[in-house]
Amino acid sequence: VLARTGALRFPVIAVNDCVTKREVDNVHGTGQSAIDGYLRATGMLLAGRVFVVAGFGQVGRGVAMKARGMGAQVIVTEVRPTTALRACMEGFRVTTMDRAAAEGDAFCTATGMRDVIVGRHLDRMKTGAFLANIGHFDSEIRLADLEARAVERRQARPSLEELKLRDGRRLYLLGKGRVVNLAAAEGNPSEVMDVTFAAQVLALVDLASGPRLPNEVVHLSREQDESVARLKIATMGIATDRWSDVQQRYSPGGRVANAATTGPS
Amino acid sequence: VLARTGALRFPVIAVNDCVTKREVDNVHGTGQSAIDGYLRATGMLLAGRVFVVAGFGQVGRGVAMKARGMGAQVIVTEVRPTTALRACMEGFRVTTMDRAAAEGDAFCTATGMRDVIVGRHLDRMKTGAFLANIGHFDSEIRLADLEARAVERRQARPSLEELKLRDGRRLYLLGKGRVVNLAAAEGNPSEVMDVTFAAQVLALVDLASGPRLPNEVVHLSREQDESVARLKIATMGIATDRWSDVQQRYSPGGRVANAATTGPS
Amino acid sequence: VLARTGALRFPVIAVNDCVTKREVDNVHGTGQSAIDGYLRATGMLLAGRVFVVAGFGQVGRGVAMKARGMGAQVIVTEVRPTTALRACMEGFRVTTMDRAAAEGDAFCTATGMRDVIVGRHLDRMKTGAFLANIGHFDSEIRLADLEARAVERRQARPSLEELKLRDGRRLYLLGKGRVVNLAAAEGNPSEVMDVTFAAQVLALVDLASGPRLPNEVVHLSREQDESVARLKIATMGIATDRWSDVQQRYSPGGRVANAATTGPS
Amino acid sequence: VLARTGALRFPVIAVNDCVTKREVDNVHGTGQSAIDGYLRATGMLLAGRVFVVAGFGQVGRGVAMKARGMGAQVIVTEVRPTTALRACMEGFRVTTMDRAAAEGDAFCTATGMRDVIVGRHLDRMKTGAFLANIGHFDSEIRLADLEARAVERRQARPSLEELKLRDGRRLYLLGKGRVVNLAAAEGNPSEVMDVTFAAQVLALVDLASGPRLPNEVVHLSREQDESVARLKIATMGIATDRWSDVQQRYSPGGRVANAATTGPS
Repeated sequence: VLARTGALRFPVIAVNDCVTKREVDNVHGTGQSAIDGYLRATGMLLAGRVFVVAGFGQVGRGVAMKARGMGAQVIVTEVRPTTALRACMEGFRVTTMDRAAAEGDAFCTATGMRDVIVGRHLDRMKTGAFLANIGHFDSEIRLADLEARAVERRQARPSLEELKLRDGRRLYLLGKGRVVNLAAAEGNPSEVMDVTFAAQVLALVDLASGPRLPNEVVHLSREQDESVARLKIATMGIATDRWSDVQQRYSPGGRVANAATTGPS
Repeated sequence: VLARTGALRFPVIAVNDCVTKREVDNVHGTGQSAIDGYLRATGMLLAGRVFVVAGFGQVGRGVAMKARGMGAQVIVTEVRPTTALRACMEGFRVTTMDRAAAEGDAFCTATGMRDVIVGRHLDRMKTGAFLANIGHFDSEIRLADLEARAVERRQARPSLEELKLRDGRRLYLLGKGRVVNLAAAEGNPSEVMDVTFAAQVLALVDLASGPRLPNEVVHLSREQDESVARLKIATMGIATDRWSDVQQRYSPGGRVANAATTGPS
Repeated sequence: VLARTGALRFPVIAVNDCVTKREVDNVHGTGQSAIDGYLRATGMLLAGRVFVVAGFGQVGRGVAMKARGMGAQVIVTEVRPTTALRACMEGFRVTTMDRAAAEGDAFCTATGMRDVIVGRHLDRMKTGAFLANIGHFDSEIRLADLEARAVERRQARPSLEELKLRDGRRLYLLGKGRVVNLAAAEGNPSEVMDVTFAAQVLALVDLASGPRLPNEVVHLSREQDESVARLKIATMGIATDRWSDVQQRYSPGGRVANAATTGPS
Repeated sequence: VLARTGALRFPVIAVNDCVTKREVDNVHGTGQSAIDGYLRATGMLLAGRVFVVAGFGQVGRGVAMKARGMGAQVIVTEVRPTTALRACMEGFRVTTMDRAAAEGDAFCTATGMRDVIVGRHLDRMKTGAFLANIGHFDSEIRLADLEARAVERRQARPSLEELKLRDGRRLYLLGKGRVVNLAAAEGNPSEVMDVTFAAQVLALVDLASGPRLPNEVVHLSREQDESVARLKIATMGIATDRWSDVQQRYSPGGRVANAATTGPS
């Protein structure tokens, strides 16, 4: 938006858009650490519980996959039809938060939007339900609505607050509604942050050494993205195929830089 | 490529790029029908077998997920580091075809490239291995190399040819190496083709009624893509959330057209 | 029952109880072939559809796992609390058929019981729902109730009958409600039948050559069961560990016959 | 063994054998808490890593399923052919520890046997590999062999010791090789312990109020097992079907006590 109106005073490199960041860090890193935060904060058994994930962007998809992988029944809520369709095709039950609210044993918002869980949802929840956020800010769950319903609060476990509501139900808030992997666990594993930092370093190298970039949002080049991935898989010991010259010429997209194939796997 | 050189004499609408086509038809439609083709052609039990998928693009990913879902151990081969990394993060074992060749009980190419399985791979395969292609053409498996090694051929089942090699091993070719969901099953389910056709119709409406498009590769608009998805999920009975006015204003990307929320799920 | 009352006039060897039969043939063989039957009969896309499995015994569990593996949302119905709990812990949604009837896009009975889907369930189903049985007899779906509601029937596809109901809805019956893997596909893969037949042969060898067995239900010995499994995994190229003498002596259960470890995997 | 030799001086109730304990506590409770221990001790990203589970009994199966569910590539090692076959059919790669040792990024023993990971395995491991035990005692990994190879030890994180080996590689030991869910996390969730304790209480009630039990290993009755499960699913809000009188009479096994069906799910 800023770029379009000419208000951007410096170049912005959208490191978050590269494959290595989107697919590794956002989906798998944050997906895992959200579950990690959930386990540390609550000690709950995920198997057999209804786990509601609001939002099926990269982070939400990661959380949903990992929660299912631990044996939970996952419900996804979404706004965008294409994303809802995608969640559905991956085997998740998709419905509205109004309906999911009454069924969930545990909730995790991952939308980047405010007011995803509000008073009318809280009013329908089962006693004992857990509420967490892995999205941007602590506004995804409207905390004021929760507080307005509470008659008693106590710290049940280090990152877990119990709120006794006027109607007698008890709801549990993880890490004050802040990003739960930081609030209740240790954030993302270093093994995914390395990928993100590598992309950021490459971006800075671009800024420092390349031609002056325009005051726009620019993307990390495909080559840089492949380059970070190539380093990462090499350290993981993963070998990939290489195209022969005949294959390179056959490719409509032109040459692809082959990855190193020295790994043992 | 054609567009860049100015050689394109008419507008091209890249329907294949829209989410509804990519995520629904390519991944799930073709993924399922490839498995369907495999079962009809071979009658093999997938559980416990090593299933090698060459290529982890949309189709390859779909095949890999479904084969795993049926109980197979899936190995993925890839060329691009970012794609290899993605496959690996989704829990697949990634290695070279040179190594996978000796381990696979069943192979399925899904690359869009020629010569993915060639003579030196055939030489390493176990007797009894199945060979199929779900990619673009029957050149993904180099059939000449297979034929050069065969001393005897017979039709073992309707879409399955047995080739006895000089060294006594037997390899099985599904549907002559042609796209296996068409060669051995019924192609993609009508339920996914509807989504693809809807996108194509919208593209044609654009061409017919909108302003004259440039002689370039243009994409279906996001609105059209969402529109197809909205119709699809409505027929599936899936309900999604809607943003309130406050939420719409909060969104950095501006307004999102809410999906209908009349479904019963 | 017969054994207890002394009415059994000959020894019965319960081959169905051995691990190789229960875990391989029943779960994976029949699980896969039920899905195969579904795909051939209907051509439906499983991804994103609600698939209801009645019964979570070995066969039902197999069907449920494979349907989920193909991307379906699976609902399980059960009678026994322990089995319901087990299904739930494995991530399946468990509810009653009365509730599942209104949500399912596809149904598959696997109970060994009659009248699992009856008129009141049919009355709640969505138009377009598919009905199949992988259980013992064609009485799991009460066909008389279906016929009583139908005003029109036609063969929609080779193993698929369309029934137009009085209220305008259409339901689809696979393979006349008979065991769907036989009615619409090719039964179980030969690769699992071999295991079952091997167990049966060993049982017959016992009868012929061993001491006279009592007129009771006897089980295949653990050694025979391990023996069949050992052969099976050897042909699959799977290597297992062996206990050293120190480990054998440490084992509370006494010696375990080590499996061959010559496989290449 | 003791029972057979008449050396047992009191009745033993094998609570561990009941379905609710085996399928809930052992598989899902311990499976989850082993992963929890792994994450807390190491902070590693499971996605994309090779995770080796020794033993595919109830606990090993639980760990293997959850590790796969978090995105790891899981290798299983086994001794018994039937169990190896079962692991294989569930899609796991099964091989010997000699081979797995060189491939694993993380190891978890779950066998109930000693000396599962010994010197010759340690010699083949990649630098950086993690070693943990969820089995009975800290003898599953032969610690003396590890210590004999170490030239330097330091506490890398609270429950993680780094051992620098003579050849320069570094291996990481979780929780001193003791049961990792207790050593590095909080043991099993209270939600599964309740099921186990309920079974134990019922067993004690039997001892106290029933007829004098023989000095043998006796099992919790099926009714008691179903009873515990019935209570558990009721608290989870899960509804099950009930057999009608007609169905009860049809059942070859006779009457089954119906579960309560009052749940909302």
